[in-house]
Amino acid sequence: MSYDFLFDLALIFLSTKLLGILTRRVNMPQVVGALLAGLVLGPAVLNILHETEFITNLSEIGVIVLMFTAGLETSIKDLKKCGLASSVIAIIGVIVPLIGGAVLGHFSSVGGKSLMENIFIGVVLTATSVSITVETLKEMGKLNTKVANTILGAAIIDDVLGIVILTIVSSLGNTSGESVNVAVILLKVFLFFVFAGVVGFIFSKLFSMWFDNSKKDLRRYVIVAFVFCLLLSFAAEEYFGVADITGAFLAGLILSGTKESHYISARFETLSYLFLSPIFFASVGINATIGSMNSALIIFTILLVIIAVLSKIVGCYFGARLCKFNNREGIQIGTGMVSRGEVALIVANKGKALGLVNDVLFAPIIIMVVITTIIAPILLKLSFKEKNPVVEENSNFTPETIDNGIDPYDGSENK
Amino acid sequence: MSYDFLFDLALIFLSTKLLGILTRRVNMPQVVGALLAGLVLGPAVLNILHETEFITNLSEIGVIVLMFTAGLETSIKDLKKCGLASSVIAIIGVIVPLIGGAVLGHFSSVGGKSLMENIFIGVVLTATSVSITVETLKEMGKLNTKVANTILGAAIIDDVLGIVILTIVSSLGNTSGESVNVAVILLKVFLFFVFAGVVGFIFSKLFSMWFDNSKKDLRRYVIVAFVFCLLLSFAAEEYFGVADITGAFLAGLILSGTKESHYISARFETLSYLFLSPIFFASVGINATIGSMNSALIIFTILLVIIAVLSKIVGCYFGARLCKFNNREGIQIGTGMVSRGEVALIVANKGKALGLVNDVLFAPIIIMVVITTIIAPILLKLSFKEKNPVVEENSNFTPETIDNGIDPYDGSENK
Repeated sequence: MSYDFLFDLALIFLSTKLLGILTRRVNMPQVVGALLAGLVLGPAVLNILHETEFITNLSEIGVIVLMFTAGLETSIKDLKKCGLASSVIAIIGVIVPLIGGAVLGHFSSVGGKSLMENIFIGVVLTATSVSITVETLKEMGKLNTKVANTILGAAIIDDVLGIVILTIVSSLGNTSGESVNVAVILLKVFLFFVFAGVVGFIFSKLFSMWFDNSKKDLRRYVIVAFVFCLLLSFAAEEYFGVADITGAFLAGLILSGTKESHYISARFETLSYLFLSPIFFASVGINATIGSMNSALIIFTILLVIIAVLSKIVGCYFGARLCKFNNREGIQIGTGMVSRGEVALIVANKGKALGLVNDVLFAPIIIMVVITTIIAPILLKLSFKEKNPVVEENSNFTPETIDNGIDPYDGSENK
Repeated sequence: MSYDFLFDLALIFLSTKLLGILTRRVNMPQVVGALLAGLVLGPAVLNILHETEFITNLSEIGVIVLMFTAGLETSIKDLKKCGLASSVIAIIGVIVPLIGGAVLGHFSSVGGKSLMENIFIGVVLTATSVSITVETLKEMGKLNTKVANTILGAAIIDDVLGIVILTIVSSLGNTSGESVNVAVILLKVFLFFVFAGVVGFIFSKLFSMWFDNSKKDLRRYVIVAFVFCLLLSFAAEEYFGVADITGAFLAGLILSGTKESHYISARFETLSYLFLSPIFFASVGINATIGSMNSALIIFTILLVIIAVLSKIVGCYFGARLCKFNNREGIQIGTGMVSRGEVALIVANKGKALGLVNDVLFAPIIIMVVITTIIAPILLKLSFKEKNPVVEENSNFTPETIDNGIDPYDGSENK
């Protein structure tokens, strides 16, 4: 057996940490450093690290655990409060980029050859990847705010809308013979939330009962919680065609009510910063393989990035304003939705499979994903800036950092 | 991408936990339950779980982290004390099984066709896998005892002796044309320990200095420690032909002197029980694919198992007695060395590659490995029995369990 994976991991942990510390020095979230680490070590620059099945799977578990802990630390009550707002924001935040992308595709020389292809460029822009935002909000200790809950809610709905739109567009512009039935998929999405709700209700009840009966060993609860998270994530992808991270988030949300949710999330914090999340964030960067580009493509890329960022911010900003958020909050929510991350890549791959995304458009899309993913946390941090100068001092004050009596600074590096 | 790995992990975590709890109920170490879980779910019985690169790599990291924490929790001073004893025990504990295996091979009808092949059966029996013993001792809260240190020391020397013998036998009985130079390999083994010593000395000094200068963030120390562990494990395998777990153990040993070694090992405890070690122990069971066997082979297998267990116990027992250990301790040390685990499988594979191990002997060897691995912790626990009836009550009282103010029972399930 080859032992290179040991070296790869060492390299990932070291580089993400070092660059993370560096980016913190210049007051940027560590996540940015981690992403850059992957980008630099990956095929895009030094070409030392490559995507392996091992890394891919681990990064998948990384993002699942990330969303699971986010769910654990979210209060269902607060989330309900933001339900309507989140929906409005998600919908407008999807429509604006959809149009923006389609228009760009239509007028650009390298755009799609057909209307559907142009619309699909818009579809790619609709996807929101909340994981990096979650990480950033966590780092800033803002995860349990009204704004954060709204963003999380909107991102979940956005995820669903993304699936719906992808499904509709795919079924309409299907050039690959692969048949897709809109109604069936919509039903599946609906059924998933019903399923998660029912299973979740039963499980959380049993879990609490079990908990009260024997305090004998806390570790087993952590593991059972993990199993529940993994199974719900798996079921989401496998049986309902919903993103696994949505399943993971719901799993966390379901357990967030239980007594020991803090103890559990603290354990996953450790698993996350010590092992999984560095791998996830690095792999996002590692995925960015960029071929040679001509001037036309470069211009298209620049425009794509600008539209990706602005359309999301503007769309969500208006959505937020409609829902009585003040100007500042509107901007925070808008920037919180900018990051595209892995979701856009998944959509793009799906489009490629359906013959709706031209290969030449892949490099621009990847660059768009990487840039939005890197600037999202920066913008988000700026949008929270003034009011909280000492924000990173006592950020991410997890139960673990409390339990262990470690000085708050420990929490400030959630990687 | 396929999401089956999520289901596989869920299955591994759930089954190892449930069977672990079950085995504890009947006063057996949880490790046994975890091993059985893998065996039952693997190709040997239900054939639900299969070895994937993902699982293999994770289980490798699992055993590395296991040995790393073992090293972190070992006191160099105590280990030095046991240095001579360990050497004597290791040497006699290697010679006896070597002869035992060779004799079995010589007289059995299914034994090797040549003298070298018979000797190689003995070579397979020499290997000691200490990881399960470490886990069991940890579970019993006996890791920091004179006996445990002697076992650890002996296992390390045993590992080296194993490499040496494997090398000599391979080079003598080499039928594959693959050339092996004994002197070179011996030199490499020697150089590795020199290398580890020098690098370790420098690193631990720098590490402590860094630590004293900024207490700002404890997490970064944990990650840097992990990187050091991974690199030393990688270097051991890649450049010196030494087992990676030996490198990992030394890495832990090197850092065991530093001030925050307890904080660090507590973090790895969490990573271990929550994610990595269930995968490792399950995979040992999953690896046991057993073909059809005739009566002669079955008899051979039974004899192989008996000789494997007795030769190691007897050899190490005499070694221990020679070194002034009392009768009870002698038995404890002997049983502590019984487990063969992955090491024997590695040796067997090497032998196969060299044409020294007949394919028909693979099933017996695997069965021998699984059985020794399963009964080792049981015997070990029995050997510690009488004197400490409440042994599992406050076992494995890690800093984490203290820091978090969790009741001691939490520690009792180190899986």
